[in-house]
Amino acid sequence: MITIISGTNRSGSLTLRISQLYQELLATHGASAQILDLSHLPHDFAFSALYDKGGQNPAFTAFHQQAADSDKLVFIIPEYNGSFPGVLKTFLDGMPYPNPWKDCKAALVGISSGPQGAAPALSHFTDVLHYLGIHVLAHRVKMPFIEKSMADNYIQNENYLRQLNKQIESLLAF
Amino acid sequence: MITIISGTNRSGSLTLRISQLYQELLATHGASAQILDLSHLPHDFAFSALYDKGGQNPAFTAFHQQAADSDKLVFIIPEYNGSFPGVLKTFLDGMPYPNPWKDCKAALVGISSGPQGAAPALSHFTDVLHYLGIHVLAHRVKMPFIEKSMADNYIQNENYLRQLNKQIESLLAF
Amino acid sequence: MITIISGTNRSGSLTLRISQLYQELLATHGASAQILDLSHLPHDFAFSALYDKGGQNPAFTAFHQQAADSDKLVFIIPEYNGSFPGVLKTFLDGMPYPNPWKDCKAALVGISSGPQGAAPALSHFTDVLHYLGIHVLAHRVKMPFIEKSMADNYIQNENYLRQLNKQIESLLAF
Amino acid sequence: MITIISGTNRSGSLTLRISQLYQELLATHGASAQILDLSHLPHDFAFSALYDKGGQNPAFTAFHQQAADSDKLVFIIPEYNGSFPGVLKTFLDGMPYPNPWKDCKAALVGISSGPQGAAPALSHFTDVLHYLGIHVLAHRVKMPFIEKSMADNYIQNENYLRQLNKQIESLLAF
Repeated sequence: MITIISGTNRSGSLTLRISQLYQELLATHGASAQILDLSHLPHDFAFSALYDKGGQNPAFTAFHQQAADSDKLVFIIPEYNGSFPGVLKTFLDGMPYPNPWKDCKAALVGISSGPQGAAPALSHFTDVLHYLGIHVLAHRVKMPFIEKSMADNYIQNENYLRQLNKQIESLLAF
Repeated sequence: MITIISGTNRSGSLTLRISQLYQELLATHGASAQILDLSHLPHDFAFSALYDKGGQNPAFTAFHQQAADSDKLVFIIPEYNGSFPGVLKTFLDGMPYPNPWKDCKAALVGISSGPQGAAPALSHFTDVLHYLGIHVLAHRVKMPFIEKSMADNYIQNENYLRQLNKQIESLLAF
Repeated sequence: MITIISGTNRSGSLTLRISQLYQELLATHGASAQILDLSHLPHDFAFSALYDKGGQNPAFTAFHQQAADSDKLVFIIPEYNGSFPGVLKTFLDGMPYPNPWKDCKAALVGISSGPQGAAPALSHFTDVLHYLGIHVLAHRVKMPFIEKSMADNYIQNENYLRQLNKQIESLLAF
Repeated sequence: MITIISGTNRSGSLTLRISQLYQELLATHGASAQILDLSHLPHDFAFSALYDKGGQNPAFTAFHQQAADSDKLVFIIPEYNGSFPGVLKTFLDGMPYPNPWKDCKAALVGISSGPQGAAPALSHFTDVLHYLGIHVLAHRVKMPFIEKSMADNYIQNENYLRQLNKQIESLLAF
């Protein structure tokens, strides 16, 4: 099973829209996927589901267990303050130890309003995934100036679409 | 004003204890400091104080405004899953833009149960601080195997204490 | 074919000795490997084999072509000045474009005299390999205080040996 | 004294041209600077001036001693293979220990043909400089698509020029 993690809890985010488009692109390659949308996390999970509270918030547990059977992961990561969203990391900090995604294979997509395409975020996040024992596909897709690249609720930048399709081919073969 | 940020919301954390010891060490150098303890964040701040909700949670606003006048910062950062705690980054993601700490100078201290002393966390966090316009002292202190280095609620490792004192001298001169 | 890259040109290095031990460990798992020893690089390769001189130094070309058929790579990386050795990166900067190792799979081993085990070096190097299209095994082995962990020209630290064997199992299955 | 390090040994590089423009911009701010051009390194320095050969290549020693009295440094860093040039790091690996630039203050400028503006390179290089005890200015300037931003041997991108001038103001006040 492939799970796409929409890496922010911002409501109505472009990150969620890109996650849906990624799901559609996967479908054109014959692969089905579910989306794990971090905006559905319990609002107090950073206090009710972490550390000594690990496993004690049933809503949090149900949330990540939806994706427990995944063998491939796609993280759509917006750039916030020069790195990944704090909420995305907090979500991982709340997952059980050892992480149920150990030995999974992951593809990373970065988006940003500015010019970097979340490049530093993807680098930092690779360190996190490696720590958790999750393999990362070499081909990282970075989509800078994402707002300017969207129209009619779709990615208009041909290069971005080409890269996403190439990444999907690699992920399916990984 | 110097503010020490205790970089986790884990209650009763060693991070908070190290923050207090850092405050005491600063006092022996004639410098006073306050502690900003992330365990006092509003429990739902990741949903009630970020993005389009920016500035709308009075408790969150009051929390970070305590430290608005700082010109020097000390971040005590425990290593969680190969990087900084998600909550620490989420806290920064909720601060106003531009960040009130722009042009401040910061010292970083990493602690870990394992052997790395949060080295990758400090590297990632430097990228975040640079993005926010906060200067980072070259001398980063890393304290691996922190539990084994504590006794009587105090740091017993002479090398760690020497490094902390050296960092404090640099920070005061920075 | 598996190629082990001994990641420094320092003569008589511990890095080369670890490369040989890795080769022996691979043999106990039934896998054969060759060693590419950077101390055999032409001494002026940084000026005679890079950029507009790419492909013009036959000794440099012969050196990397020994390993052109590899599908798995092991990089033994000593920590120099908080990152990988400059010579290791210069070697990669001189290889043809696109890199013949594109789509290979790589395992990383870091060694250091000090406490970090080259953790930041492995993080930086992963960015480089990802750029070149080389997949990196999640399991990175870090061996701090390497001199103190050797005796009789062999690794005495049981934990290091256990980790190396685990990494080899992962690499062979990767 | 301010030293600008032109971070590659590629002959006739755009990096050297940007170094000269930076020197001219510094002059308009009333500050003089010299350029240390890595293309003037001895061709075999990676073998004749490092490790046990440290200090034994008089040409290498003379090269870095030109800049020994610097208190501020500017590194112009082109992106090669997802990081800084290997030669730049090799140069630092050959400098004396402790590094004569310890406690200096450094500004980083990244340039790239592609979209990243050497962002990961600047991140990696900050780790190296911090290791060496060199403070890094928070404001990093990244200039992607550099070739397209040049005409008449000058930077035409107004935003790049504005950022460089802002960085210079910060560096002079740092």
